[in-house]
Amino acid sequence: MNRPPVVGVMGGGEVPQEVAELACELGQALAREGWVVLSGGRNTGVMAAVSEGAARAGGLVVGILPDRDLNRASPHLTVPIRTGLGNGRNILNILSSDVVVALPGGAGTLSEIALAMKNRKPLLLLGWKASPIKHSEFGPVVSLSSVTDVVASIKELLTTDK
Amino acid sequence: MNRPPVVGVMGGGEVPQEVAELACELGQALAREGWVVLSGGRNTGVMAAVSEGAARAGGLVVGILPDRDLNRASPHLTVPIRTGLGNGRNILNILSSDVVVALPGGAGTLSEIALAMKNRKPLLLLGWKASPIKHSEFGPVVSLSSVTDVVASIKELLTTDK
Amino acid sequence: MNRPPVVGVMGGGEVPQEVAELACELGQALAREGWVVLSGGRNTGVMAAVSEGAARAGGLVVGILPDRDLNRASPHLTVPIRTGLGNGRNILNILSSDVVVALPGGAGTLSEIALAMKNRKPLLLLGWKASPIKHSEFGPVVSLSSVTDVVASIKELLTTDK
Amino acid sequence: MNRPPVVGVMGGGEVPQEVAELACELGQALAREGWVVLSGGRNTGVMAAVSEGAARAGGLVVGILPDRDLNRASPHLTVPIRTGLGNGRNILNILSSDVVVALPGGAGTLSEIALAMKNRKPLLLLGWKASPIKHSEFGPVVSLSSVTDVVASIKELLTTDK
Repeated sequence: MNRPPVVGVMGGGEVPQEVAELACELGQALAREGWVVLSGGRNTGVMAAVSEGAARAGGLVVGILPDRDLNRASPHLTVPIRTGLGNGRNILNILSSDVVVALPGGAGTLSEIALAMKNRKPLLLLGWKASPIKHSEFGPVVSLSSVTDVVASIKELLTTDK
Repeated sequence: MNRPPVVGVMGGGEVPQEVAELACELGQALAREGWVVLSGGRNTGVMAAVSEGAARAGGLVVGILPDRDLNRASPHLTVPIRTGLGNGRNILNILSSDVVVALPGGAGTLSEIALAMKNRKPLLLLGWKASPIKHSEFGPVVSLSSVTDVVASIKELLTTDK
Repeated sequence: MNRPPVVGVMGGGEVPQEVAELACELGQALAREGWVVLSGGRNTGVMAAVSEGAARAGGLVVGILPDRDLNRASPHLTVPIRTGLGNGRNILNILSSDVVVALPGGAGTLSEIALAMKNRKPLLLLGWKASPIKHSEFGPVVSLSSVTDVVASIKELLTTDK
Repeated sequence: MNRPPVVGVMGGGEVPQEVAELACELGQALAREGWVVLSGGRNTGVMAAVSEGAARAGGLVVGILPDRDLNRASPHLTVPIRTGLGNGRNILNILSSDVVVALPGGAGTLSEIALAMKNRKPLLLLGWKASPIKHSEFGPVVSLSSVTDVVASIKELLTTDK
């Protein structure tokens, strides 16, 4: 890969303060590695926090927006992909990521976790008190609790992959 | 509603024989009520079985295909919607349904369950040994075990809705 | 084909009265042949008129809506496909049609004419004073002036096709 | 706008050598201005040439691929957006661009020109021997013949816009 890896960060549009802080810390750490940080791009919840963190660390920040314009976009995106697809853009978040990290969220985040499994993308859960999915047969789930562990896991995944 | 209700039936592309039989029975029962039966339209698993059942009972059968052509479509569709969107069509399955019934399946089915919750569509699970989702906060889940119960629940939902 | 052919009818969302009347007449004629009438499904312009015509003649009327709900849908649809994709649904209108008929319209209609050519769908223009496209190399364009001619051409296309 | 403007470059997947050279020159010029160069991302025709030109000049190169993987992607993309939407991704090319430049191409390019008009994106045609569209009512068309003129026009558009 002669381009920077793309790490997709999923998570709720409305989250508790500690989840937003974790997302911000994650964004900073990913950007410091030189990785592209991709999210759903809206100016709320995990999307806003991870984009802000990545931008602060000087990273390349991509947002795949459900909207056709920038009205609800995070101001920290380097490249806002305007889709007009609504939830139909969730699959793009997953397919466009080389690795997916899912922070806590609701049903939208769950759909992205499922789509990551369906499309066999490397998937890391960060900060979940309990796994959101009951049956292991949907696919492998790696659950981590710190940003440091996520970065280490991605490094390992990227090495194995190539 | 002066059009027939649309019941979307989700479920795996590869399923055990008893799940396929349940899907076929469901398709027949839904069609006998005069309801449109909508599925992912492919000629495999729950999609194939529910379409065949509905067609046998003379129903209107809609398939929202991931493909841009009919190569992998069930031969029992009255109206094949060819999308070329791949998994991107999953959201259409959900948005186009007035009620969603999910039979057992894998990660693709799980993404449709999540999208139904996200979009607040009435959702019935049929034939699952255990709920695929751990956190009740994703949305309400009604789990049923017989086609008769599903038909009765849909009748109730349709009455309440109007 | 053991299902009814799907004729997709494209055209403007705001059209002069005579274009709306032509669309209504076309919808009736297509439905009388037993063909499924597919359009963009909104309650305006050619979409509204062709759906109303087809419904009056007892036809099966499919609308592929840009919206995720029925707020702007024609009340004459038998099966409303709710996509939430905005203009992103234009490609579905084309791929899901066995034959495409384009009545006068604006840039949205032009995009559908282009997508029909791109995807090699049989394409008939009806009621255009002049062809909207300058270069014949984009694909073949058949321009007709009456509903009778359109029905005759579709019959020929359907015979040749099989 | 505290992000770099996104210039979307459309054009054929199979083009004569002189069109490819023009696309390459355009990519270099756009990148030198510090603008993001966005295209359909495939490794062929205008997409390949504009991406290569932009990459050579050290630019940020975004490709919105019709595919769900990188098999047919230009190797010069900084950020490959993998959509799996087929032609359904054409609307994303347009919505995600702040300005659209269309080089010669076939029906796919024509659909993007139409979608740019439909969505009122600033649109510049470059290198066309004759305008591909007959009716001026579809929207305004500015036809230019040199990369220098395109860059000057975009600068003017970006100033007017803010």
